[in-house]
Amino acid sequence: MPGMNRPVSTVPTAALQALKDMLGPGGWLESAADREPYEIDFRRLHRGNTPLVALPDSTARVAGVVELCARERIGIVPQGGNTSYCGGATPRPGGHEILLSLRRMRKIRAVSAQNDSLTAEAGCVLAELQAAASAVNRLLPMSLGSEGSATLGGIVSTNAGGTAVLRYGMTRALVLGLEVVLPDGRVLNQLSALRKDNTGYDLKQLFIGAEGTLGVVTAATLRLFPQPAAVATAFIGLGTPAAAVELLGSLHEALGDTVTTFELVPRVALEFTGRHVAGARDPFGEPHAWYVLAEATLAAADDAFVARFEAALAAAIERGLVEDAVTAASGAQRDALWRLRETIPEAQAKEGASLKHDISVEPARLPSFIEAGRALLERLAPGARLVAYGHLGDGNLHFNLSEPAGGDGGRLAGQADAIRRAVHDLVAAHGGSISAEHGIGQLKVGELERYEDPAALDLMRRIKRAIDPHGIMNPGKVLRDSE
Amino acid sequence: MPGMNRPVSTVPTAALQALKDMLGPGGWLESAADREPYEIDFRRLHRGNTPLVALPDSTARVAGVVELCARERIGIVPQGGNTSYCGGATPRPGGHEILLSLRRMRKIRAVSAQNDSLTAEAGCVLAELQAAASAVNRLLPMSLGSEGSATLGGIVSTNAGGTAVLRYGMTRALVLGLEVVLPDGRVLNQLSALRKDNTGYDLKQLFIGAEGTLGVVTAATLRLFPQPAAVATAFIGLGTPAAAVELLGSLHEALGDTVTTFELVPRVALEFTGRHVAGARDPFGEPHAWYVLAEATLAAADDAFVARFEAALAAAIERGLVEDAVTAASGAQRDALWRLRETIPEAQAKEGASLKHDISVEPARLPSFIEAGRALLERLAPGARLVAYGHLGDGNLHFNLSEPAGGDGGRLAGQADAIRRAVHDLVAAHGGSISAEHGIGQLKVGELERYEDPAALDLMRRIKRAIDPHGIMNPGKVLRDSE
Repeated sequence: MPGMNRPVSTVPTAALQALKDMLGPGGWLESAADREPYEIDFRRLHRGNTPLVALPDSTARVAGVVELCARERIGIVPQGGNTSYCGGATPRPGGHEILLSLRRMRKIRAVSAQNDSLTAEAGCVLAELQAAASAVNRLLPMSLGSEGSATLGGIVSTNAGGTAVLRYGMTRALVLGLEVVLPDGRVLNQLSALRKDNTGYDLKQLFIGAEGTLGVVTAATLRLFPQPAAVATAFIGLGTPAAAVELLGSLHEALGDTVTTFELVPRVALEFTGRHVAGARDPFGEPHAWYVLAEATLAAADDAFVARFEAALAAAIERGLVEDAVTAASGAQRDALWRLRETIPEAQAKEGASLKHDISVEPARLPSFIEAGRALLERLAPGARLVAYGHLGDGNLHFNLSEPAGGDGGRLAGQADAIRRAVHDLVAAHGGSISAEHGIGQLKVGELERYEDPAALDLMRRIKRAIDPHGIMNPGKVLRDSE
Repeated sequence: MPGMNRPVSTVPTAALQALKDMLGPGGWLESAADREPYEIDFRRLHRGNTPLVALPDSTARVAGVVELCARERIGIVPQGGNTSYCGGATPRPGGHEILLSLRRMRKIRAVSAQNDSLTAEAGCVLAELQAAASAVNRLLPMSLGSEGSATLGGIVSTNAGGTAVLRYGMTRALVLGLEVVLPDGRVLNQLSALRKDNTGYDLKQLFIGAEGTLGVVTAATLRLFPQPAAVATAFIGLGTPAAAVELLGSLHEALGDTVTTFELVPRVALEFTGRHVAGARDPFGEPHAWYVLAEATLAAADDAFVARFEAALAAAIERGLVEDAVTAASGAQRDALWRLRETIPEAQAKEGASLKHDISVEPARLPSFIEAGRALLERLAPGARLVAYGHLGDGNLHFNLSEPAGGDGGRLAGQADAIRRAVHDLVAAHGGSISAEHGIGQLKVGELERYEDPAALDLMRRIKRAIDPHGIMNPGKVLRDSE
């Protein structure tokens, strides 16, 4: 029987009926089969239950749902594209929380080239928003592996990163204004394309990256940029992460902040993509220990830009910093180089079981961190393969471990807690972050408690209590609750 | 007798003695003459009293002062370079608050070209920090009229703007990490040059722009950028603000986000500087109704950059958007053009009494706002001269009014409240901000209450109570207190 082993929901039937009446036809889902995709995260690490999936189609209806839940003390789990890496949008097993999906809120309310801004509702998928900006000859510089499914509300609520942070910053840097339904059902309307507004505390900052624990983001105004007119892309072979860090400095000196992307790729990742991704091929004749995907963009049309980029790489080769480099001579070649980076998660999944760590340290300390981490993992999990890749330009690596070639993923899974602890202890010793871009969700609540300064944790709890005194907003995420 | 008319301080003598003992020799000032410069703001609009100026020389001593004041429920007014435009760092007349000057905390703790970061204490003057960045071949892109006296703590606490916001953002965009003494005396250490850190709520955002009402910023880590290698500067004559807004769009399309500065200057301001500033001269033979100071910078050395900038201006002249333009051919010429913008406040002061309004609206609405504002002010204050200048690229104007030529500033002063109300009502009707970059301080507490959404004000008060439950941090600033 479906749901047989599930605890009975404690949400009162009358409240559920009132919610359904308010949401109207098409505004809710209740059967086990309909609820199922909302109750499990896409990594399939977390499974919960909810008595009701609410699908409001307007800010007023979101406010109505929250107001009723506040009165009845019912927990609310907001969910966007359901692409969280940390179970941040998955309800807990108790069945005490309704799921609030923003998927039906997908109006683009305004796009303005003159204000360089775009205002859209929480359920809009990132790729749609990129296209809307492009249609007025502007760039929305947020770029993620999951851009075809991640939604604006989730992107804002997790302060998402991606491959253009080096140049354009995290989501926080792109948010000009927000509309938020507060935990008592009031609507905080701070949608605006104003660049400067120092009237009191900047409240929108509270909700960016709060993972839905302080309110429901229903719409946002984002900053747009001039579209790149010149693009230079290279795949670069080099010997060490230290050489990569030094190369980034050289490129910055030669090309300024036109450098948009600087992604580290280890040899093992290229081997994985070569084995598992159709059409992925090593652009070099000889193997290199490390690679970098680098891209620089200029909004102005400038015929000499690619030549300057290539000259900077040639100088790095001459100095012995870079072993080899290829640049893209066409859009198709550029896409092929990007595929070598973008398909790493998929290729790693096909290599078998893996453990993921999303860490950052200051760029200057990255090389020594990688070396110490490699030695540590060789000791803890002999034969397992370190796949340390990602946003080197931001000091952010996905410090992942794949099971040994030929299997034994079970053993690796059994060691997950011990390995995570060791990696995070090393990150802390290097002054780094145990969650650079994926957030806390439910997965890392204990880790946050372990590594965060007690004064900081205390402040977070005070803010949570001040804004959500009944603890109904995404309970148990980011901060532990009393359930 | 000095201080004869001042209310007697209510800070207990024993507490004052304990503070002095803790601060040590050189760590405090008490005589009326010594206190005087700390008790009045530099615009001479606000005068208060304090029984003691505390001058701690370390974070530990700041923490000691705050801890003692928390225990004794003594108000604390943090002060940096004392350049607030809103009385944000001036104590109130009651004599109930000690003044906490950060001026002795001026160590630069670290500068790293590799991390593109600088960590310094709150009392460091901005110009020193710019020089420290420059010494490692990096740019600290914060630039203000008061950079020779404004300090880091004040800049962070007011989320200062300036003339490079268009390209680099407000102070908030430059802050990577903070060290803050919390209202109970604990030290929140979040100094770090990490680019990405999504571990829970981003607490530093709370203290940026909070004007010292939530804690004392004692140090900050700022983001540095590559130094410009190519600079193009122009002074441009045109007919209307609408033409200026359109020109900014054209420059963005031609030059991308290399456009760093885009400042509007009205004809009357050029007349003022011509009369009062030595060496300031109109670069054109004919008068123009409006001017723009525009600058674009590129980190890469590029001989063609200035030519591309000039070509974009030539195209704008051909289209009839721009009437005339001069570009700087040397550093001295560049300085001369900048002087025409930077000396406006000084020249306006020499023209007699004035009223200042620091407003912003979305760029697309600026032209209609300026026209409506001009008509309004001609009706309210016939003969007075509108000096609307500033950061057009950010939608931020200093919408100031100078007394009529020949005087009658007394009448203008008498109308200050009515005029401010009318201007701010117009700003609100245009969806703008009544304090774009100067903050609230004590000057605009009532204005914030009038124009802010009640839900937003309520959230601000909740945050204040949650973090500073005894209301000792800069009481009565930003939010009204019960004194």
